[in-house]
Amino acid sequence: MWVKHSSSSVMGFCLNYLLQASNEDMSELEGGMINIIKVFHKYSGKKCKLKKTELKELINNEMSHFIMKIHENDVLDQLFMDLDQNRDLEIDFKEFIGLIAMVTSACHDLFNPK
Amino acid sequence: MWVKHSSSSVMGFCLNYLLQASNEDMSELEGGMINIIKVFHKYSGKKCKLKKTELKELINNEMSHFIMKIHENDVLDQLFMDLDQNRDLEIDFKEFIGLIAMVTSACHDLFNPK
Repeated sequence: MWVKHSSSSVMGFCLNYLLQASNEDMSELEGGMINIIKVFHKYSGKKCKLKKTELKELINNEMSHFIMKIHENDVLDQLFMDLDQNRDLEIDFKEFIGLIAMVTSACHDLFNPK
Repeated sequence: MWVKHSSSSVMGFCLNYLLQASNEDMSELEGGMINIIKVFHKYSGKKCKLKKTELKELINNEMSHFIMKIHENDVLDQLFMDLDQNRDLEIDFKEFIGLIAMVTSACHDLFNPK
């Protein structure tokens, strides 16, 4: 089960000088986290939310090694419904990062069977 | 609220040819996701779980642009308690990716205030 609330102790940490850090300063982990934000915005644009077609494009273009390409609408509809937790018919960043966390975790388990 | 269960429709997707894909083939997003797994294992070693000291080391070494360095034990204890959802006194990958998702989401909100 993911951490379902933004725990105050973690959020208590101030985001440390993020605005001054340039890409070169960042660790591989931080760079990976920024990449996730960048790719989301590549497809969401300024509205910061993905429509169904944008989610499909993102998955098919950027996650093809991890998820089979989506062709059938019913597969897309089911995935979209699973991710759209607040039922606003769009995927916001919090809902998107839930997909990333789940797929990354599945990849981890693939390489490290219990 | 993150997607709290590994929804069957997403998990229904088979992890597509992951084992043959080399780093160069991967997209920036996929590379970022693999980096998250790599960094976790850099500190967890083969046991695939982080002890409290390993979690502190990872955060202080790899997330210093996103989270203030941890010095006080009470801060570490609180964070550890928040993340250790199954109370086994270690942080597994699923619990770790919850931290990554939360911090990445906070970074996203920092750049995109609603």
